[in-house]
Amino acid sequence: MNPSVSVALDCMGGDYAPHEIVKGGVLAAKKFGYKVFLVGEEESINKVLESLGEKENSLLEVVPSEENIDMHEPPSNVLRKKKSSLYVAGKLVRNGMADALVSAGNTGAVLVVGKFIVGAEELVERPSIGVALPNPNGKTVLLDVGANVDSKPKHLVQFAIIGHTYAQEILGVENPRVGILSIGEEEGKGNELVKETYPLLKETGLNFLGNAEGRDIYSGNFDVIVCDGFVGNVVLKTSESLGFAVLQMIKEEIKKSWLAKVGAVLMMPAFNRFKKKADFSEYGGIPLLGAKKPVIITHGRANAKAIRNAIKVAGEFISQDFNKKLVENIKMFTPELKKASVGN
Amino acid sequence: MNPSVSVALDCMGGDYAPHEIVKGGVLAAKKFGYKVFLVGEEESINKVLESLGEKENSLLEVVPSEENIDMHEPPSNVLRKKKSSLYVAGKLVRNGMADALVSAGNTGAVLVVGKFIVGAEELVERPSIGVALPNPNGKTVLLDVGANVDSKPKHLVQFAIIGHTYAQEILGVENPRVGILSIGEEEGKGNELVKETYPLLKETGLNFLGNAEGRDIYSGNFDVIVCDGFVGNVVLKTSESLGFAVLQMIKEEIKKSWLAKVGAVLMMPAFNRFKKKADFSEYGGIPLLGAKKPVIITHGRANAKAIRNAIKVAGEFISQDFNKKLVENIKMFTPELKKASVGN
Repeated sequence: MNPSVSVALDCMGGDYAPHEIVKGGVLAAKKFGYKVFLVGEEESINKVLESLGEKENSLLEVVPSEENIDMHEPPSNVLRKKKSSLYVAGKLVRNGMADALVSAGNTGAVLVVGKFIVGAEELVERPSIGVALPNPNGKTVLLDVGANVDSKPKHLVQFAIIGHTYAQEILGVENPRVGILSIGEEEGKGNELVKETYPLLKETGLNFLGNAEGRDIYSGNFDVIVCDGFVGNVVLKTSESLGFAVLQMIKEEIKKSWLAKVGAVLMMPAFNRFKKKADFSEYGGIPLLGAKKPVIITHGRANAKAIRNAIKVAGEFISQDFNKKLVENIKMFTPELKKASVGN
Repeated sequence: MNPSVSVALDCMGGDYAPHEIVKGGVLAAKKFGYKVFLVGEEESINKVLESLGEKENSLLEVVPSEENIDMHEPPSNVLRKKKSSLYVAGKLVRNGMADALVSAGNTGAVLVVGKFIVGAEELVERPSIGVALPNPNGKTVLLDVGANVDSKPKHLVQFAIIGHTYAQEILGVENPRVGILSIGEEEGKGNELVKETYPLLKETGLNFLGNAEGRDIYSGNFDVIVCDGFVGNVVLKTSESLGFAVLQMIKEEIKKSWLAKVGAVLMMPAFNRFKKKADFSEYGGIPLLGAKKPVIITHGRANAKAIRNAIKVAGEFISQDFNKKLVENIKMFTPELKKASVGN
């Protein structure tokens, strides 16, 4: 057996570690035929494997680690905790043993490992986190949503190229419509960062439509929207929380009438289909785009299915040769690099 | 008759101008006994007044104007269009004829009039837009949501004092819990602006709880959250659009089953109560806080009820003597001013 893809799975990160994480790894190995390195406390992982009757599965390999990164500890700690499951998993990728890293652990720490252990792809200045948000017609990639703050115009230009590549290669969007997040539609509206980035984006040759507004994130008018990671992170967390608050407030109103309660029961299947569409565990995690190898960060609440889906996403990045296309696109769409190659 | 409050109402701004705007002015005059200056095309306004049988109401005074500000024209145009309804209404406030300005027109242009015609209150460096967003337990004031971009730390400190005053005096919150919008809870997390502002906020003596995250905007953990106007505007517009997208997606799912359709009908009253809670027209517009006199900006889609509510809000600012308290608070909570007064 010669699996096409091998994934280093941090089995000690996330609210349901290690049980659900290991189970997710097992599901992925069985469903996709991938090699999965299960990194973490050997004994605990073996127990889970035994309970699942998967001790002998040759696609699964336990890689022992000795410490864990807590969900709340400072992310940079991971660089000192070289025996932690996350660090060890990152090293497997760096050393070429594994093709991709998947973790449900401390997001900041996963980012640190992605940036400094796995490292950035050639020509990529700042790997960034891209999230594909649902809209009525499809998905909109918003990036960066938290890997970088105080970004410079040249970084936003790279985010645009990275987002373009993600939309095209992974989401299958032809000629993605790219926008820059701002306040007001017209060129010239926005803060200093937006005003300086806008003309650079026009020069790239990307399908740049101009300013996008907050309302465009869920409108379906753009396939890719770039912003600084501070803004993107706030938007993402606000969205999660608003969805929850809306459901809470609707529930409170439903409680006030028995007719509404009956109505809610009848609507349950429709609600559940909607929730499935909006559910993070269906998405399979958020990629750190521009790392040398795929790094997939899942929600801390990830269950086995979410982990399986995250591993699937990692596999798609590999089978689509995402990084190769990203480097080609950076060369093609970066104004200075274009000029340089014309000069040759 | 000696009305306690007089309001300059821009009758030509908004999607339903002038009819709904004039009607809103009439409702406010009748309900609250306020004097309302109806600024706009004399003939059109008189027609509406006639149709409502209010031609003789002495609380209503038509002030003619000769041009309008389009919803999509550059906001600064208003400073050249001195015969526009918005400019004329602003002048009534500046000259002391009216106590407050209400407009459903071009938001940017209303801001320009608020900042430059009405002007900023003593000690206020940058008037800012505050919006009271619903949470399961009450409201959270988010500011600034679009009046200022590229704010400096000292501006965010003022936003905090302004928001504190708004929450305390208008929303009736005792000792409002103040936060600064960031990514990550701990001190030291965030971008440069947040890191520089944090220690200044600690010095104010406000009830400063530290960093708020995107998810806190709708959680009810804070009464006031400050941010730069770029970020706040994006958050606000994202929220509006997400609410809409969620309802759209749920509707699509409901259409797929007749049982769900029946359920939706039974739930309608509960849904409507929720919508009422979330509806901008119930809020009565968003104040430009820190202008010399109250300036209330309503949604472009404002109907008569929204206008009536906006005028009511203007009246509350006046009857609460908001600006006087704001100036007192700026003196009390601004670190440098505190030191200066101790030095006296």
